[in-house]
Amino acid sequence: MKRFFITGGAGFIGSSMADRLLAQGHAVTAYDNLSTGQSRFLELARKSENFQFVHGDLRDQETLRDAMAGHETVFHFAANADVRFGLQHPDRDLQNNTVGTFNVVEAMRLCGARTIAFSSTGSVYGDAKVFPTPEDAAFPIQTSLYAASKLAGEGLIQAYAAGFGIRAFIFRFVSILGERYSHGHVFDFYRKLLDNPNEIEVLGNGRQRKSYLHITDCLDAIQTAMELAQGDVNVFNLGRDDYCEVDDSLNVICNELGLQPKRLYTGGERGWIGDSPFILLDATRIKSLGWSSKLSIPESVRRTLRYLRENQWLMESRH
Amino acid sequence: MKRFFITGGAGFIGSSMADRLLAQGHAVTAYDNLSTGQSRFLELARKSENFQFVHGDLRDQETLRDAMAGHETVFHFAANADVRFGLQHPDRDLQNNTVGTFNVVEAMRLCGARTIAFSSTGSVYGDAKVFPTPEDAAFPIQTSLYAASKLAGEGLIQAYAAGFGIRAFIFRFVSILGERYSHGHVFDFYRKLLDNPNEIEVLGNGRQRKSYLHITDCLDAIQTAMELAQGDVNVFNLGRDDYCEVDDSLNVICNELGLQPKRLYTGGERGWIGDSPFILLDATRIKSLGWSSKLSIPESVRRTLRYLRENQWLMESRH
Repeated sequence: MKRFFITGGAGFIGSSMADRLLAQGHAVTAYDNLSTGQSRFLELARKSENFQFVHGDLRDQETLRDAMAGHETVFHFAANADVRFGLQHPDRDLQNNTVGTFNVVEAMRLCGARTIAFSSTGSVYGDAKVFPTPEDAAFPIQTSLYAASKLAGEGLIQAYAAGFGIRAFIFRFVSILGERYSHGHVFDFYRKLLDNPNEIEVLGNGRQRKSYLHITDCLDAIQTAMELAQGDVNVFNLGRDDYCEVDDSLNVICNELGLQPKRLYTGGERGWIGDSPFILLDATRIKSLGWSSKLSIPESVRRTLRYLRENQWLMESRH
Repeated sequence: MKRFFITGGAGFIGSSMADRLLAQGHAVTAYDNLSTGQSRFLELARKSENFQFVHGDLRDQETLRDAMAGHETVFHFAANADVRFGLQHPDRDLQNNTVGTFNVVEAMRLCGARTIAFSSTGSVYGDAKVFPTPEDAAFPIQTSLYAASKLAGEGLIQAYAAGFGIRAFIFRFVSILGERYSHGHVFDFYRKLLDNPNEIEVLGNGRQRKSYLHITDCLDAIQTAMELAQGDVNVFNLGRDDYCEVDDSLNVICNELGLQPKRLYTGGERGWIGDSPFILLDATRIKSLGWSSKLSIPESVRRTLRYLRENQWLMESRH
């Protein structure tokens, strides 16, 4: 039995990892400020005697350090993931993600925790020039405050690895779908269609090409990497080899709901300022360790939508 | 006449740029907390009626914003540049450099300043695999908190450029030498030789290969780029095509001083944790705009040393 500490432990990815680790016989401490995390995501975890929850913020360094003491491995998933609205509150990504990540690695140094897994993003490649985009793509130019804050987090973790001997696993995610998904395009489209099943606004021209990954494939990849990768700083793209256009994804959603809304496009190749019109990551590195994605994008979209339909409380809890 | 705002305006590079801009007929506001900047560096500038100095910290957002109002272009040179000792106070680079840079671009947004020039570092390439290293080298892994904080600053500036229409000039410097130089290997070697002319400790094996640039070449390059580059986000390496080993540089210093100290090497290919054993930047991009470096590395080392010998007060002011 190992002891894992999960920041953002009540979030979509964090709570899913908690359930998995507990099922594997490990002990888990979930740390979350519940700003976007959901206490209900931890209903299963709470049934385990190997689980504990700490209600705390990454910015509260003392609480964080006290909670982390005695844990060897940290999954750092807590983040402001409100990607689209970074420009409306420019310091939020800096404080929650960059300074938050600093507080995590600093707490690790002070507690003696030796291994970190970090949820970065494929958006750190900015407007990539090569698709699929490999981990060693050309030095990127950032296009959003969210991605800039994740890049800053990567750099901090790498510098701590070099300076203090911490082992690091950095995962650059595409968008993750599946059970407990609680923000993003499926969420937004579904909510809009609940409001008005006859017409729907689509941000951009609907042709943005995005890759997605199901949560179970994502967790499989993380565990595969942490089991098999040998480096001190290990960077992995996590994504599928295919993508879909926003319109394709909306087709799946509309079919599932039996709707044929009129689509109103806001126009332009980006959904919002800083949106990447094309995200497709080269996952050769993680696949070379034996991992592969099992659930297709349409299947992942369908499962996500079904989950949201069965969990209306989640729709209502987020504004 | 344009109005320029210089953070770190009392520092080595900032005060040199201030003098140059004033001589060119522009107005300059120097902003500095004088933690490492030197009031004496501004003796010449203070004689100009187009110059003003504001004693302030980047962390004081209100003072910064008030001081910046009415300026179109910002040179952001303020930084904790205490590269070697990042691990002794891990939050200093984060606060001074990353959060400091955020405060600068946020003040620009609120003031309507449209153009920023930023002193980044060639250290953002980490342990580069290609030499000379071009701006679009492979996505790097950071090896020091200092470089991580500069990378974070680059990302923030780029995201502000994408989100708020600010124009950005990001300069990745090699080490800069010349008049007003006040920290780095020439400073350290000279001080050690003042203490003991008979023997000297050399960090690492003395074979670290470093490129240097003289301050006048550096300022020429910055002004060339800002005059001629057309992009919204312009990234330039600034450095010479050659390098010298630490031992070569010490030879120049010893010759100049007429000393032959015994050299005691601490050993290892790095001078300290996070030190890059080889820095050589590909400056093709800035050279394509017509710039070239005029002063050789040995000449730059000699001028730096002469400056320090004539300005003993500077040796005494820094500990």
